[in-house]
Amino acid sequence: MNRATSSPMDPMHAWAKDLFPINRSITGPGIRRTLRYLAELVPGLEIHEIPSGTSVFDWEIPPEWEVTEAWIEDAKGRRLVDWANHNLHLVGYSEAVDAMFTRDELESHLHSLPEQPDAIPYITSYYERRWGFCLAHRQRLSLPEGPFRVRIVSTLKPGSLTYAELRLRGETDREILLSTYVCHPSMGNNELSGPVVTAAIARWLVGLPRRRYTYRILFLPETIGSIAYLSCHWQEMQALTDAGFVLTCIGDERAYSYLDSRFGNSLADRAALHVLRHMVERFDHYSFLDRGSDERQYCSPGIDLPVGSIMRSKYGTFPEYHTSLDDLSLITPKGLQGGFEIVRETLGLLEANRLYRVVVKCEPQLGKRGLYPTLSTKETKQQVASMMNLLAFADGRHDLIAIAERIGVYAGEFLPVVERLLSDGLLEIQE
Amino acid sequence: MNRATSSPMDPMHAWAKDLFPINRSITGPGIRRTLRYLAELVPGLEIHEIPSGTSVFDWEIPPEWEVTEAWIEDAKGRRLVDWANHNLHLVGYSEAVDAMFTRDELESHLHSLPEQPDAIPYITSYYERRWGFCLAHRQRLSLPEGPFRVRIVSTLKPGSLTYAELRLRGETDREILLSTYVCHPSMGNNELSGPVVTAAIARWLVGLPRRRYTYRILFLPETIGSIAYLSCHWQEMQALTDAGFVLTCIGDERAYSYLDSRFGNSLADRAALHVLRHMVERFDHYSFLDRGSDERQYCSPGIDLPVGSIMRSKYGTFPEYHTSLDDLSLITPKGLQGGFEIVRETLGLLEANRLYRVVVKCEPQLGKRGLYPTLSTKETKQQVASMMNLLAFADGRHDLIAIAERIGVYAGEFLPVVERLLSDGLLEIQE
Amino acid sequence: MNRATSSPMDPMHAWAKDLFPINRSITGPGIRRTLRYLAELVPGLEIHEIPSGTSVFDWEIPPEWEVTEAWIEDAKGRRLVDWANHNLHLVGYSEAVDAMFTRDELESHLHSLPEQPDAIPYITSYYERRWGFCLAHRQRLSLPEGPFRVRIVSTLKPGSLTYAELRLRGETDREILLSTYVCHPSMGNNELSGPVVTAAIARWLVGLPRRRYTYRILFLPETIGSIAYLSCHWQEMQALTDAGFVLTCIGDERAYSYLDSRFGNSLADRAALHVLRHMVERFDHYSFLDRGSDERQYCSPGIDLPVGSIMRSKYGTFPEYHTSLDDLSLITPKGLQGGFEIVRETLGLLEANRLYRVVVKCEPQLGKRGLYPTLSTKETKQQVASMMNLLAFADGRHDLIAIAERIGVYAGEFLPVVERLLSDGLLEIQE
Repeated sequence: MNRATSSPMDPMHAWAKDLFPINRSITGPGIRRTLRYLAELVPGLEIHEIPSGTSVFDWEIPPEWEVTEAWIEDAKGRRLVDWANHNLHLVGYSEAVDAMFTRDELESHLHSLPEQPDAIPYITSYYERRWGFCLAHRQRLSLPEGPFRVRIVSTLKPGSLTYAELRLRGETDREILLSTYVCHPSMGNNELSGPVVTAAIARWLVGLPRRRYTYRILFLPETIGSIAYLSCHWQEMQALTDAGFVLTCIGDERAYSYLDSRFGNSLADRAALHVLRHMVERFDHYSFLDRGSDERQYCSPGIDLPVGSIMRSKYGTFPEYHTSLDDLSLITPKGLQGGFEIVRETLGLLEANRLYRVVVKCEPQLGKRGLYPTLSTKETKQQVASMMNLLAFADGRHDLIAIAERIGVYAGEFLPVVERLLSDGLLEIQE
Repeated sequence: MNRATSSPMDPMHAWAKDLFPINRSITGPGIRRTLRYLAELVPGLEIHEIPSGTSVFDWEIPPEWEVTEAWIEDAKGRRLVDWANHNLHLVGYSEAVDAMFTRDELESHLHSLPEQPDAIPYITSYYERRWGFCLAHRQRLSLPEGPFRVRIVSTLKPGSLTYAELRLRGETDREILLSTYVCHPSMGNNELSGPVVTAAIARWLVGLPRRRYTYRILFLPETIGSIAYLSCHWQEMQALTDAGFVLTCIGDERAYSYLDSRFGNSLADRAALHVLRHMVERFDHYSFLDRGSDERQYCSPGIDLPVGSIMRSKYGTFPEYHTSLDDLSLITPKGLQGGFEIVRETLGLLEANRLYRVVVKCEPQLGKRGLYPTLSTKETKQQVASMMNLLAFADGRHDLIAIAERIGVYAGEFLPVVERLLSDGLLEIQE
Repeated sequence: MNRATSSPMDPMHAWAKDLFPINRSITGPGIRRTLRYLAELVPGLEIHEIPSGTSVFDWEIPPEWEVTEAWIEDAKGRRLVDWANHNLHLVGYSEAVDAMFTRDELESHLHSLPEQPDAIPYITSYYERRWGFCLAHRQRLSLPEGPFRVRIVSTLKPGSLTYAELRLRGETDREILLSTYVCHPSMGNNELSGPVVTAAIARWLVGLPRRRYTYRILFLPETIGSIAYLSCHWQEMQALTDAGFVLTCIGDERAYSYLDSRFGNSLADRAALHVLRHMVERFDHYSFLDRGSDERQYCSPGIDLPVGSIMRSKYGTFPEYHTSLDDLSLITPKGLQGGFEIVRETLGLLEANRLYRVVVKCEPQLGKRGLYPTLSTKETKQQVASMMNLLAFADGRHDLIAIAERIGVYAGEFLPVVERLLSDGLLEIQE
C-alpha cells in the first residue's frame, strides 16, 4: 500500500453541503438522488433496488415514501410550519392528510424538545402509519389557538429500497467491509459525515497501486438496508470477511470514538484501537453495549461478523444529535479529515498486518548487509533497537499489530523497516 | 421453575429449637434422632446406616458412641460439672471412667477458654481414646481443691454411621448436590442452621411443578460422613454433577459468605457469586485456601467435584464459633430466611441457566410482535435496551450468567424476558 | 537434590582476581587461558575450538586476534598510553600499525568519555578493520601537541574460536542450560562475575548425590560464541531444553535482576521469578525488550529456547558499565554469593518442580500416619494447614510452583513436606 498517496484533499465538506438539502428517508427519491451523487464521485459504485414487500429475514421492505408538500396553516391561511423550509419538520413516513384540526387535536401530532427550545427534532415512524410535524419548542409555544389546516401530500406505495455497493477486488479474496448509511435528511454529523468520509476512502482505495484485501463498501439505509443486504450476502460475508467498520458520526472535531464488535478483540477492534491509541491524544472506547447503528446487524447472533464502528462524536453523546442543530457547521473540513485519516491508517495497517518471519536463525549479521554500525559502543546499540526488536519478535506466529503492542510502539513505524527487511530477504511472510 | 412459589414461611428457627437439645456426634442415637426429625419434614428423605469398621478410602467407620451420664463431683458429692446440663460439657467420644482424681490429675482432662471465660468450648476426640470435660473458664477457676469423683457412662462399640439422603429426580440426569452436616451438638449457626435451611430448600424443591435438574441432598456427619458417602458414590457423582454446595453457618444476620470450589470459576461458583453480587449489599468471598468443611472432600484431588459453600458468617470468623455462645439466639428467623433465599435464588438461576439462541438472523422486528414501540425517539430506544441486549448476545455459546455478567445486570431480571421470547419463538434453547 | 550441601564457600572473588589481568577477546590466547583456568576448577569442563572462517548461520568465525605490544609515544619517546598498563587501552581487534601521526590524525583513533573523565571506555571492532586507543578523558585533554608515534603489534590470522562446555548427565535427558561469556577483558561485574558464579554452580552440581536434570553449561565468547554453538546444537537443544539462564553481571551488591525469555512465562521465568519474589526484598524485572546478551540468540525466532537471564545489576544500568571503573572492587564475595544463591535455589526448585498427585481419594487420615494431632481444637487446625494445602492442591495437573503461587507461599518451604509425603506414599509423581 502506497502511503505517500494517502492524503487526498477530497472536498468532503463540499459534498456534504451539496447533499444536505435532499429529503432522505429509508426509501424514495431522496436516497436515490443521494446515491447517484455519490456514484459520480466513486468509480464503480453500483446502485441496486430491492422491491417493496420483499421478505428480508424477520422484516419486509416497506413501501416507498414520497412527499411533495407538507404544512400547517392557521385559519387565515398563514403558513406556520412548512416542510419546504426544513426537511425535519415532517415526521418521516408521514401519511397524507388534508383537514382542519383544533389546537387540541393537533397537539398529539406535534413533536418538540422543551429542553432545546430552538431545535427541530428528528422523528420517524417507518412501521406504524402516522403523520406528524416536528418544530422548535419555542415556535410550538407561540402557535395560535387554532383551528389549523394541515396538508401533507405524500404517497406510500410499492416501490423499492435503494442502496449502493462497491466491490473493489484486491489480490486476495479476503475482505474488509465498510458500511455507512444514507437515510438521514438534512443533518451533518449524523449523518452526512459517514457517506462523505466513506466516499473519500473509496476514492483513495480505488487509486492505490495495489490492495491485498478486497473491499466491500456499502451505502445503505440504516437497519432495514443492512438487514436486506445481509439477507442476500451473509453467507459469503461470513466466509470472507476479516474485518469491517461502520462509519458514522465521523465529521466533527470534538472527539474520536470506537465501538467494539460484539465480542471485542476482533481483528477490526485490534487494528482500529491500535491506530487510535497511537494517532490521537485521546478517544472514547465504547463496548458493544453502547451499539446503535448497523453493527447491530453485522454482529447479530448467527451473522457474527467482526465489525466495529469508527466515529468522532458518537451518536447520542452530543447535544445536537437527532435535531436540526446537527447542521453543516457541526462538521468541518478538519473534522472530516481527522475521521478520514483514522480510517485510512486503520486500513493501511490491516493491509500490512501479516505474520512475518525472520529467515535466518539467531541474530542476522546486520553489518554485512549495511544495516548495523560496525563500531560497538553504548550509543550505537540504541540506534538499531527498533529494527532489532522487529527481528527478535517476528516469529511467524504473531501478527504485526501483536508485535507492535508487545514492543509498545506504533505498528505504522515498522512499515518502512518491514519493506527494507522483506527486500533484503531477512523477513518473509508466513502465509 | 415457578418463582412465585419460592418463599415458603418454613419455621426454620422452630425446627432448630426442637433439635438443639439433642446430643449429636458423628455416630450414635443423637444423629439418628436428628435425621428422623428431618425425615418427618422432608418427604422422601431416606436414612442409611454404614457399619462400624467399614473401610471408606483412607478411613474406617468408627465405633458408635453413646452416653447416658457424665459428671464431676467434689468430695462431698456436690455435682460441679454435669453433661446433663449442656452437651458441650463432655468431650465428644469420651470413653467411660469412674474414679477419684486429684486437682492436678483432673486438670489435663479439662478444657476452657481463658479469653472467653463464660463460654464452654466444643471439643471432640474421635480417633484417639480420651475423656475430658469442657467448662467455662470462670467456673474452672472456681473449682475446689479436690479430690474429685469423675463418672462418665459411655460406650464405644460396633454400630453404624447414620446419614440421610434425598434423591429428587428432575427432567434430566444432570445433578446439583446439596450437602450439610448434622454431627454438632447444641450449637446454632454451626450447626443447626445448615440442616434446617437445607430441609427448607428440600421442601421447596419437592413442591416445584418442574425441575430440570436432579437433586442429591445429603445430611451427613462432617468429614467421615462425606468421605463414607463419596467412597460409594464418587464415580456417578463425577459423571453427573454440574454444581454443588455445602450449606453451613447459614443462619445469623451478620454477613453473607461464599467459599470457592478448588479451582474457582466452576458453575457453582459462577452462579452463587452472581446471585450474591446482585442480591446482597456486601458479602465475604473466600478462596479454597479458607476451606474447612465437606468441600474438602468433594473437591479433593481425584474427586474433583465443582462444590462451593454458601454461608452467612463463616465458621472460624465469629467469636461464638465452637462454643456454647453459638446458641439459638445467634441464629434468627431473618438470618435463616436470608440464607434460604440466596440458596433458592442460586438454584433458580442454575435451573434457568441455559445456552439460549436467537432464532432469527439480524434484529428481530419487535414491532410486529408487539414488543417494540413503533415511534422511534430518543426515549423509547432506552426502554427496550434490556430485551435488545439479551437478543444481541444470545448466541447459543454463552450461558445466561455469562450474558448477564457481560451486560452488567442480574440474570434474574432476564427470566421473564426469556420466558416471553421463548414462547414467542424468538429464542430457543441450545441443547 | 541435597540442599544441605548447597552452600559451598567457593572463593569466587579470588578466581575473579586471578582472571582479571588476562587480555580476553572473542578469540585468541586470552580466552583460551581463561577457559583452561576454569577447567581446573570444574571437573569435566571440555574446551572446544571452531576454526576461523567456519560459517555459523548468518555469521563467520572471525580470524584470531593476538596482541603483544600497543602504545602511543610523544616525539621524545615518552610513552603516553600503554596497553601493558590496562587491557582496555586498546580497541578490541585493533589491527597492527607503526607510524607517526599528527594530533589531528590521532584524534579519530581515540575514544574517551567526557562525562566520566577518569574512566577508560571498553570498545571493540570485531567486524570492521580499525585500530584505536581508549583512555581517560582527563588524560586525553592533557596529551601534548604531537607528533605521536603509534605502535600496535597485533595479528589477525586464521586460528579458532574457543569455548568450553560441561555436559552433566542427570537421571533424565531433559536439560537445563546455563550460559555465560568469557570475552570481556579486565572488567568485574561485566564480566568476570558470570564465569566465576557459573563455575561455582557447576562445582555444586557436580557434587550433588543425584540430579534429575541433565545440565548443559557453556562458557563462550558473547554473541558469536552462542551463535556458533547453536548452529551445531540447536535442534537437540530445542528437543531437550526445559529451561535455561544466561548468567551475567551477577557479582555486585546493589540489585537483583531478572530478564524474561521472549514470551515470558516460560518454566525458566516462572522458577526464577518465584525464587526472587520470596528470597530477596526487591528485584528489577526486565522484559525481553531490555535484552542484551546471549538470550538474544537462545530466544531468537526459529531457535525459541526458554532462556531468561539472572543478574544482580544489569548491564547498561550501572555507571561503571563497559569502563575501567567496573573493576574488582565492584564485585564482592557477598555480591557473588548472593547471585550464586539465587541460581542455586532456582535450580533446586526446578529439580523438585514435579506434578505431584495425592494417592488416596478424599482427605488422607493424617492421624494414623502420625501426621496430625488427634485432639481437634481451633489451634491445632492451623498447624497442619500447610501440609493440608499441599494435599488439597496436588492433583497431578499443577506443578509445585503453580501450587505454591496459588497458596501464596514459597515453594521451597514445601520441599521437606513433599519428601515426607512421598516417603509415606501419600504423594506420587505424575510422570
